[in-house]
Parts: sequence; structure tokens; C-alpha cells
Amino acid sequence: MTTRLILDCDTGTDDAVAIMAAAGHPELDLVAVTTVNGNVPLENTTDNTLRVLDHVGADVPVYPGAARPLIRPDFPIPREVLNADSPEFQVLQLDLPEATSTAQQTGAVQFLIDTYLGDEGADIVLVATGPLTNLALALGAEPRLAARIPRLVIMGGGHRMGNVTPTAEFNFWVDPEAAEAVLTAGIRDVTIVPLDATHAAELTLADCDRFDAIGTPAALASSAFVRHRIDTALRGDAEAAASTAVHDAVCVAYLVDPEVVTRSGVHPVNVETTGTRTLGEMIVDTRQWTTEPTTARVAFDADAARFADVLADAFRG
Amino acid sequence: MTTRLILDCDTGTDDAVAIMAAAGHPELDLVAVTTVNGNVPLENTTDNTLRVLDHVGADVPVYPGAARPLIRPDFPIPREVLNADSPEFQVLQLDLPEATSTAQQTGAVQFLIDTYLGDEGADIVLVATGPLTNLALALGAEPRLAARIPRLVIMGGGHRMGNVTPTAEFNFWVDPEAAEAVLTAGIRDVTIVPLDATHAAELTLADCDRFDAIGTPAALASSAFVRHRIDTALRGDAEAAASTAVHDAVCVAYLVDPEVVTRSGVHPVNVETTGTRTLGEMIVDTRQWTTEPTTARVAFDADAARFADVLADAFRG
Amino acid sequence: MTTRLILDCDTGTDDAVAIMAAAGHPELDLVAVTTVNGNVPLENTTDNTLRVLDHVGADVPVYPGAARPLIRPDFPIPREVLNADSPEFQVLQLDLPEATSTAQQTGAVQFLIDTYLGDEGADIVLVATGPLTNLALALGAEPRLAARIPRLVIMGGGHRMGNVTPTAEFNFWVDPEAAEAVLTAGIRDVTIVPLDATHAAELTLADCDRFDAIGTPAALASSAFVRHRIDTALRGDAEAAASTAVHDAVCVAYLVDPEVVTRSGVHPVNVETTGTRTLGEMIVDTRQWTTEPTTARVAFDADAARFADVLADAFRG
Amino acid sequence: MTTRLILDCDTGTDDAVAIMAAAGHPELDLVAVTTVNGNVPLENTTDNTLRVLDHVGADVPVYPGAARPLIRPDFPIPREVLNADSPEFQVLQLDLPEATSTAQQTGAVQFLIDTYLGDEGADIVLVATGPLTNLALALGAEPRLAARIPRLVIMGGGHRMGNVTPTAEFNFWVDPEAAEAVLTAGIRDVTIVPLDATHAAELTLADCDRFDAIGTPAALASSAFVRHRIDTALRGDAEAAASTAVHDAVCVAYLVDPEVVTRSGVHPVNVETTGTRTLGEMIVDTRQWTTEPTTARVAFDADAARFADVLADAFRG
Repeated sequence: MTTRLILDCDTGTDDAVAIMAAAGHPELDLVAVTTVNGNVPLENTTDNTLRVLDHVGADVPVYPGAARPLIRPDFPIPREVLNADSPEFQVLQLDLPEATSTAQQTGAVQFLIDTYLGDEGADIVLVATGPLTNLALALGAEPRLAARIPRLVIMGGGHRMGNVTPTAEFNFWVDPEAAEAVLTAGIRDVTIVPLDATHAAELTLADCDRFDAIGTPAALASSAFVRHRIDTALRGDAEAAASTAVHDAVCVAYLVDPEVVTRSGVHPVNVETTGTRTLGEMIVDTRQWTTEPTTARVAFDADAARFADVLADAFRG
Repeated sequence: MTTRLILDCDTGTDDAVAIMAAAGHPELDLVAVTTVNGNVPLENTTDNTLRVLDHVGADVPVYPGAARPLIRPDFPIPREVLNADSPEFQVLQLDLPEATSTAQQTGAVQFLIDTYLGDEGADIVLVATGPLTNLALALGAEPRLAARIPRLVIMGGGHRMGNVTPTAEFNFWVDPEAAEAVLTAGIRDVTIVPLDATHAAELTLADCDRFDAIGTPAALASSAFVRHRIDTALRGDAEAAASTAVHDAVCVAYLVDPEVVTRSGVHPVNVETTGTRTLGEMIVDTRQWTTEPTTARVAFDADAARFADVLADAFRG
Repeated sequence: MTTRLILDCDTGTDDAVAIMAAAGHPELDLVAVTTVNGNVPLENTTDNTLRVLDHVGADVPVYPGAARPLIRPDFPIPREVLNADSPEFQVLQLDLPEATSTAQQTGAVQFLIDTYLGDEGADIVLVATGPLTNLALALGAEPRLAARIPRLVIMGGGHRMGNVTPTAEFNFWVDPEAAEAVLTAGIRDVTIVPLDATHAAELTLADCDRFDAIGTPAALASSAFVRHRIDTALRGDAEAAASTAVHDAVCVAYLVDPEVVTRSGVHPVNVETTGTRTLGEMIVDTRQWTTEPTTARVAFDADAARFADVLADAFRG
Repeated sequence: MTTRLILDCDTGTDDAVAIMAAAGHPELDLVAVTTVNGNVPLENTTDNTLRVLDHVGADVPVYPGAARPLIRPDFPIPREVLNADSPEFQVLQLDLPEATSTAQQTGAVQFLIDTYLGDEGADIVLVATGPLTNLALALGAEPRLAARIPRLVIMGGGHRMGNVTPTAEFNFWVDPEAAEAVLTAGIRDVTIVPLDATHAAELTLADCDRFDAIGTPAALASSAFVRHRIDTALRGDAEAAASTAVHDAVCVAYLVDPEVVTRSGVHPVNVETTGTRTLGEMIVDTRQWTTEPTTARVAFDADAARFADVLADAFRG
């Protein structure tokens, strides 16, 4: 059976792999991509998305979304300061040929509202791998929307780790109010794939060799992006392993093979929006301290081999 | 010359007077009304708006908007607690015949985006007399919007007074993040009519008598609403004067006659979004302590006689 | 009858005038001075205090107190940035001969605790004209203290004005948590003299001439400090009047002549400790929106002539 | 060699074991106990401390300290609500004979200042096992104090767990501002023993049997307290192991045998003071995201057998 999905993303290298996996896997039908401000500014996430789709020959409409977080004019730490320390976020423009296709005139928020209020939305999974600004705006503008989204898979948060502060992951930290608004909106089937899971399924140079052997445009570009991420990590840290998390693609692989996630639980989940040192932290209340109604399935662990297998299947097309 | 306008409001009694003034005045052309959660829940603000427009026979489309504040699930103080103390906010349903017209399927946010991105928006003034949620969502969803709104007039805030806490006015307090987002969005011509101005132009029982003598549906309904507000204030406070601010209608009157506002200045204006005791407070930096670029014209005083004259003209139709 | 008092202050020019008034007035008995970090660092407020007391030949013990606010490591705005814009705060060292007396070894907090737990405290008014750090620390360390302080007069806050931000006065803004802790501690007789009152009793060059004619060391030094404040204000603002508020001294004059304050009321009073733009704002709930038990008498207006008369009496000795 | 120490605590059952260990161990010299509001109100922590010391015949002075947190009037969650869910905190009065000794008149804050400013403080370790209010007040009142405390051992915080919220431990959560103030005060040798370590060294019923066999008053009372804690935990949670953390006593044992802690590291450590859902969370920056100068040694793991051995040695006296 084919799973239809919309990807809502801030396309850098790992979103690019996610897009190519979603566009290429025979069991997935990528209906549209919506873009958002995140790793790089909106105009770049849109342009990068178009480049990726053109590169793999996928005729998928792209809807540009929010250019800044829900209520914050800027990043909690200026983007240039953050990037100086976090080489992962520096790829402003993907190393792919210039796009020939163009983005839609309709904005991402309106597209999400129209799609999910319409009949066709009833079987489209929403996979969000950037800051959750677009979805938060759509839920705010259209009170009926939460009840209409059948399933939401989110890459975001970290349960026992962060990647921009000691406690926060990038997507939730950039727009914590959007993340909290989405998690408290009452969408009935929500899965979160946090850093704990994505780092449990890191890809290696051997995976890159395997993708190279497949040899399709998607396989080759993904291999190049993964190698770039490994190189960057190694430069930054002499003790780093020659492997890298490809966060966003884990969500897509999970749609195809639920056993990519090996351990998960349904818990109250919230995002800190006011902490001086904990802004954007995901709080998974595994011991039920609170009586919060917000719940989501949270992935705590993942299977790197199964993840790589799904990608290989996708890249074979 | 006729001024075209859109009213964005949370229709209780004073919004109702504003709608009837906008729909009836020969120098105004009311293009549409968008509704928002505020004094009463969204379904009531929409229904009340339809009742008012039907009552005066105005064929103006109504677009329902946000059902809750931008990021806050609820009022800072529960609505029922607030209403118990503030009789002004209790009119859930206006005392007018049931509406026969219906609201548009398109939401307020999408309507605002479509209108102002289109050519016709270039000469339409936006008058916002409720919480600023709709406009904040539209500005978030469509980065190009701020540059396209030619003029914005806001009823909100208090410079030296509040009406729900010692320092905050209702509209800004209910959705402080939306108010701050709108004020910092870079819209080029913004006027704020705060409590200081609306309370300087209170209407009296004599004004009601004058409206009654006009005798049109708009005049009679407005008179009834104003009388109701005066009665409510008198019940709550033995020392109250037999007069009442009709906040939202002052913005409409100001469009027709700028001298309804008698003293104003352009200053940096912001809204407190995090204070424990000052949430929603409007800060007008009259002495330029800060170097904030945000500026708006703020009305500090108003002329009650001119205000009543504009309303009388409007009710004559 | 003589009123005994302790002055708790951060001695710059206006505290200096307050000290000389308290030390010199025949109806006042200045028991001790405690110093605190504020307009200038602790070591300077202590040194300035010693210089002032030596200059007027007053044998009054000086107890040094807190070197930083209760929980904030620094000013909300760095002291040097603030001072660059606010010439009022720049006098690091008063222009008086070096002190020959020295400060006590006992700290201000311990002195306050010992004094008020002892019998002699029962008739000593505490007059606090700097940030309220010392008193907050003493109240925290000794739970029995609040019930033992017979009367507290505070220079701090602004009801309808600020002097470091649009809404905050310096003393409350530098240590808002201390101010809130003191106001909520349950001290039974608290009077606040905010900017609204001190600016209603500004001194002029004519007052300086009058002090000069008195010719005592206290009169001459006070005249020089007031002239310096007027000069500084005039340099900063061409439209400034040739007059200046001498904030702290108004509290001392009020002890001698209650009619120095001409309008006041007892209201719930709190200090904002968390606002992004309203940190340190004093909230006087004149309309009883809240049900806060915290109350203090707040002075809203003052009589400049009576104020100057008390000072003249004090300087004559 | 004997280690001299002061215990600063909020005596419930685990502080009681810590006191008896400190009073009884031949290599420790308990100089004084200071008490603070915490698990139970100040009057009870003081009374419980006197009961424990009397029970073991220890002539150690007790100085009562702060009755409420540094700036918070109350617990973040009302004490009675918290206690309803957390049986651990309910022992208002220890089951020991009424105390015949009495507390000192001098307060804890003044005692700490006097002790550490004096010469004798130079070799006294401060062990703090309750909210850090007393020490924060002392550091605020006496700027010279931080440089005079030779060593500080704290029971507080949780690195990967909380015990009152998903992310916060009781002591830091009750007074987060005090904890942050102490950690940023510049004390040169600070060790934190968080929940991660104390739960790695839980005591069992077999340990209680061993203490019973020792048979001294300290051994018997400790056994009874530990059994009570185990019973309480078992009632609350059917899956709980028959063991319990005796948090505060781990700090005392660690003074005697550093290998009670088996894994630790020196890291920047801070406490969240403003988070909506993360108030009081300890942030250990193990990956050096921040450039915070604050550092402490943090214990991540502990050795239950060594811990029990130290206690047994102490109870033998």
C-alpha cells in the first residue's frame, strides 16, 4: 500500500535526503513539499527544495511558508553566531544544479488548510522536519484543522540530549511556541522522532559506498550529502565517529518501516517556551508527574540498518 | 472621497456600533468584516456580526478568523472569572434578530492575505478593534503582507490606564504576542486609539436621545447598546458617570474626521508579552529611552462632540 | 519630638543631601547609615557616605551592605551603558575631602537584624533611598524581622513615569526582586515616595542661593550638589527647566513635615520582576483590580516650598 | 585526619541519617547544623534537627535560618499538593523523643558569615543538603564570603532525572534563584551530588538489618528511617524496588570516602530560574555549548556498598 505524504521542511542536507527518499520510495507518494525558515532562510530552503526535486526529476509542487518564527523576530542566538559553532547548519545552498522549476504562488499555510479541509487530506500524512511554524499558523488560522489531520510525524526535540544548547534541539528551539502550539492542538496521531532516535541510526561511510553503488541521482546526491556531514563532524571534533545522523530522513523511513524505530512510548510531551537556559527543551513526562493531556508517541531508539535499507530501496526508485 | 475599509473585530456592543457606523456613513465603504475570538468566543463574534449587518441591511461579507490567541490556549485570566468582575464583557449574544445571512467559507486570515496581495488592497484601510490574532497570523503566513497594507488603525492598549489589570487593556492583554507581532511587522502607517482617547470621548444619555431621534435601525440599535453599557457601568460603580466609552467606534469615526483625535504623537510602541503583572501592557516610549524602531501614531485625547457627530451622520445613512 | 532614623542608601548627590538633612535637622536623630550597591558600586557608596558625614562633622556609624542585587549578577542594562545616557548617575566620587572616618566591620544586614530584633529598634524609622537589597536580605535571613520594623519610608518607583525605562525608576529596576520582597514582607507601615512626588518638589537655583546664604558646610555642599544636578540636566536637554529633583531628600523632609507630601493614597503596590520591557515597574493598583494584600501609602504629589524649608532648617543645624 | 564540617539542611528522614553520620563518624567533626525551610517548614526542620542530635547525644549547636525561599513566597506547587503526591516529603516530625536542647539565638546566615569571615572557617567544609537559601543570603549580605568558603558539597539537582517534575529535583526547584546564586558566586571548590548519584547508591532492607545489628541509637534510628522510606516508596508504586535513596547522607559519606562517587566531571552547571515547565532544572553543560564560567564537579554515579560501609562505620561511632 502506498502512503501519501506532505513534507514540511527547511531544506538543508538532511531534509534533502528525506525529500529524495519520499519522492523515490515505491511505497510513498510525495504529494507536496512546504518550506519554512530554519537551518537557512526561507528563500534558500525553497530554492534548495526545488533543486533537490529537479535533480531527481520529481514533479512535486513546492509551497513557500513562513519566513520567521511564530512570535520571535529572530533566532534565540543569532544565526551567524550559531552557525559559526555548528558547521551542520552552514549549507546555505545545496551543491546541485540551479532549479528550473518554480515555487507555487499559494503559500504553505493556505495550502495546508485547503488540503486538510478538503476530502483528499484524509489519507495524507504530514511529516514535519523543520521548525513547526507553518503548521502552527495553519492551526491558528483555521480552528477546524486539528481534527482533520490524520497523522503527524515530527523530527524535533531531544529527550536526553540537545544539539544547540545542553537541553534543546534546533527545530523546537528555533520556534518553541510553534512546537508547543502544535503539540497542544489536539491532533490525534502524533509521533515525535527526537535526536535520541536519529543519533541511534547514524549513517556511515559504508552506507555511502552502498548508495554510490546504486548510482541513481538520488543515491549519489544523498551519498554526497552524508559524506559532507561526516566530514564536517570530523573536522569539528577529533573524537567524532565517522558517522552522522540524517535526522529528517528517519521520519520518512519510519513511514515505510515502523521498525526503524525500535523503542517508543506514548507520553505527555511539551516544549519549554520561557526558560532562560532551557528554551525549546522538549519535556517528555515519562513518569507522569504532570496531568497534562498532551500526548505523543516518542521514539527513543532506532535501527540504523533498517534505516539504511529503506533509503537504499528509495534510491533504487 | 470615500474611504474603503475592512473591520477586524470581536463583536460585542461597541464593535456593533463601529460596524453600523462603518456600514452606514456616506464617506465610508465597508468592504468586509473579519471576526476573531475576543470579548466573546469566535462563534458568537461571527454570529453577532451577522446579526448587526442584517439588522442594518448591509450586504457585507463576513470571514471568521482565529478561535484562540496566537500562542495562548486561553485568556490570562479565565473568561468566566474576568466576566464576573467586568460586566462590559458579558454580552454573549447581541439583542438583535437571528441572522439570515451566513459567514464565508474562506477564513479571515486567507481573506486578508488574498485581499492585500491583490491589487484592490492598495486603498483599503484595515481597522482592527479586537485582539490582533488574525492579522498576526496573516503576517506570519505571508511574509510579503506587511509591505502591502496601506494603513492600519487599531483600538487597543492604554497609555496611562488599563481596563482588565492596572496596566493592560483587554485587546492587547488577550493576545499580547499578536499585538507585539503586528506592531513590529513594519506596516508603514499605523495609528493606535487606546483607552486614553476612547475614554475622553464617552457617550452620554443625551447622545442616546439624539440617536433615538434619528430613528434608523442603526441609530436605534446603537442607542440601545450605549444605554446598556451605561446601565452596566452604573450598576458596577455607584460613582460612575452616566456615560460610556464606545471604544471601537472611535476608530471608525477617526477615519471620517481626523479631528475626533485631538492630541497624538508618533512614538516607539511595544506590548509586554512576559510580565507577571504587566502582561499586555502597552509601552509608549514618549521620552525615547529605547532605540526601538517600532513606531505608531498614538492618540492621547479625543473630542466627544465630534465623535458623536460622526456617528449621527453615519446613522442617518 | 525627635524622630530616630536609619538611612539605607547608595550615596550619590541626592543621597548626600538626604544624609546631611537627616544629620542636621534638630527634629531628627540619624542613628546609622547603611550602604548598598546602586548609583555607584558599593565601595563608592560607602566612601561617599563617609565623606559626607565627615564633611558635616556627624559621628554616625556606617555599615556597608550588599555589593550586588539580590539575584541579578548585574544591572539589567550594564552600568556603563546606562550612565553614558543618564548623566545623573555618573558621580562616582563626591567632590568632598577624603574621609578620615571608616566603615564598621559589621555588615549592614547584620546591623539591621540586630537593631530591629533589639529593643531600641522599636522607635527607629527605616528610610531606604537606594535599591532595597539590604532590607530584602535581612528579611530573608531573619523571619522575625518584618514584624519588628515600626515604619519604612522608601524612595523608589514611579506611578506615571520612569527614569531609566519608559515605566521603571532606577532603585526598583536595579533590584526588582528585592523591592517586591520588601513590599510583600508584611511590614506594617510603609510609605513610598516615587518619582511623581519627587519631581513635583524640584529645587531651583533660587533654592541654591538660599542654601548658600545659610553658609554651613551642609548648606554649601548641598547647594553645590543641587547646582551640579541642574547643570547636568540642562546639558542633556535644552528644554529642561533650571530645576532638579533631589529624590532621596524628599523622604527625609517628609519625616519632619508630613505635608511635604500633598496627595497620597493607600493601595496594593507591587513591582514587576519578569517583564521584558517593564522590569522594575511599580504597579499601584488604584482601581483595585487585584486582590493583592500588599499595601503601602504612595505619595503622588509634593510641595516644593515646604521641602526646601525643611532642608533650610536642617542645614542651619 | 578529621574533616570539620557544617551541615546546612532541612531535616526530614534523609537529612537525619546525614546528621547522624556526620556526628558519629570518627573521621568527621560536625561543627554546627544550620536549618532551612524545605521538606518541612523551618520550625520543624529545626525541631527535627534538635531531636536527632539529642537522640545520638551530640552536643552540636543548631542555628535556624530562612523560613521561605530567597524571592518566592511559596513553593512553585503548594506544599500540601506536592506532599499529597510525594509521600517522601510528608514526615513533618521525626519519630524521636522531644528535644531537650534548644536552637541558638543567632541566625544561620549570621553564623555562616561569622564563621567563614573568621579564621576557623578556613578548614570547615560546608555540606548543604536542603534548599540553598541560607547560603545565598549569606553570600548576598557579605560580598567577601565566597572567597572564604574552602569547600562546598551540595545535594541537589538531577542530570537525567527529576523528583518533583520531569526535570527538577526538590532542593533546586524549591529555591532555584538561591541555587543559581550559590553556583555563580565564585566559590572555588564545589561538588554537586545529584539524584543520578544518590539513586545509584540506594540502601536496601539488608542494609537496615546490618544497621540494626550495630545497635547504637544512630544505627537503629537510621534503620528505622530507611525502612520507612522503603515502605513509603513501595506503597506508592507496586513496581518499586525494595530500596531507597538516602540522598543527603551520600554527601557526608563522600567526605569520608571520595570513592563513594564513582564517576564525576567538572562542567558548567546552572539552574533554570524562569522556565514554565523546567523551573529548578539543573543544566550540566557536558558538551560545552555555553561559555559559562560557572563550574562544579558533578557526581554521575555512586557505589552503594561503599556508601553503606561509611554509614556503618559512622553508626559504630
